[in-house]
Amino acid sequence: MLTLYYAPHTCALATHIVLEETGAGYTAKRIDFASNQQRSPEYLRINPKGRVPALVTDRGILTETPAMLVYVAQCFPAAGLAPIDDPFAFAEIQSFNSYLCSHLHVAHAHRMRGYRWVDADDAHAIAAMQRKVPQSVGESFAMVEREMLKGPWVMGERYSICDAYLFTLAQWLEADGVDPASIPRVIAHRARMADRPTVRKAVAQELGRDLV
Amino acid sequence: MLTLYYAPHTCALATHIVLEETGAGYTAKRIDFASNQQRSPEYLRINPKGRVPALVTDRGILTETPAMLVYVAQCFPAAGLAPIDDPFAFAEIQSFNSYLCSHLHVAHAHRMRGYRWVDADDAHAIAAMQRKVPQSVGESFAMVEREMLKGPWVMGERYSICDAYLFTLAQWLEADGVDPASIPRVIAHRARMADRPTVRKAVAQELGRDLV
Repeated sequence: MLTLYYAPHTCALATHIVLEETGAGYTAKRIDFASNQQRSPEYLRINPKGRVPALVTDRGILTETPAMLVYVAQCFPAAGLAPIDDPFAFAEIQSFNSYLCSHLHVAHAHRMRGYRWVDADDAHAIAAMQRKVPQSVGESFAMVEREMLKGPWVMGERYSICDAYLFTLAQWLEADGVDPASIPRVIAHRARMADRPTVRKAVAQELGRDLV
Repeated sequence: MLTLYYAPHTCALATHIVLEETGAGYTAKRIDFASNQQRSPEYLRINPKGRVPALVTDRGILTETPAMLVYVAQCFPAAGLAPIDDPFAFAEIQSFNSYLCSHLHVAHAHRMRGYRWVDADDAHAIAAMQRKVPQSVGESFAMVEREMLKGPWVMGERYSICDAYLFTLAQWLEADGVDPASIPRVIAHRARMADRPTVRKAVAQELGRDLV
């Protein structure tokens, strides 16, 4: 049985959705960011990085979304969530996920977590980062829109782990100041995802309410 | 036959080393950053992101180092560079590589590429980012040192794609202001890597000289 540690409004939702897609049982445990639980000694023993998500397995604990998504897909091959036996098709999935984690998510993080890259009390630099977010996140989504999202799903006709990851990061784009009208295919993908019962169930578990 | 597009002193070295490790033939093509060749129309047709590395295969072009490393390992299984058929062991490799690309490399990029996250003419914010690099990169290496590098290789007794990636990013740590004495196991790993003929050959191809 897998246990996912998550917090609402984080990239943990991607793995949460993929766990739902497998149809297998799992446990989801919420970490309370309001009380800084992710930095508690108990949680740091689970994930020394002090972040979510983390996935507890029979063999040990995994972190980092791209690794966790592939792990779940590989453990439940019947769900068909990643073509791991086709090196090129698998590499396309990996490339997509890697772009999301190291470019798109990183750009987004400069709005709320700028203290990672400048001193927390440097108000000018923190604000300068926040001002750039609509452009940097917007450019990342534009790259996805123009070059990477094949449609109707990220990899074309076949649904995959990439879809859960893109949907998760696309929750934040309006708050990041990105104009949805500039990325119609990403927005249509987000709506397509929101129609899936698995997605609605994972979101409802995290937020305690349905999608709007 | 695979073709790697690279530039010296970039993370392309990781894939370059792994290609050498396979013993298979490949072509390495240098992109000239001094003349901004990575933004030329010709190269943007290869990689619309305007960055290196890119890997041209018979089926198409791949980008993003974590994806490329696994692809090469999977195409040449005899080299034993990643335990792809063991989901947990493979996920550990993926988690390591994902951390390097989305945390360690990102922290490093704030020294020279701060314009990605603030306006390029905001000298105060650019300088604020640069001042934080010794700490942010240092903390990433400390996490590798303390929690992730099993030794003697990243994943323990078995050499893997992670070793090439860590060695590549460890080329920059002194310039980033990280104290080598604070991460002795990373430094010992770097020295162990520098003794490998494959590593020396890839470095020599890129720099036109041997390692110091």
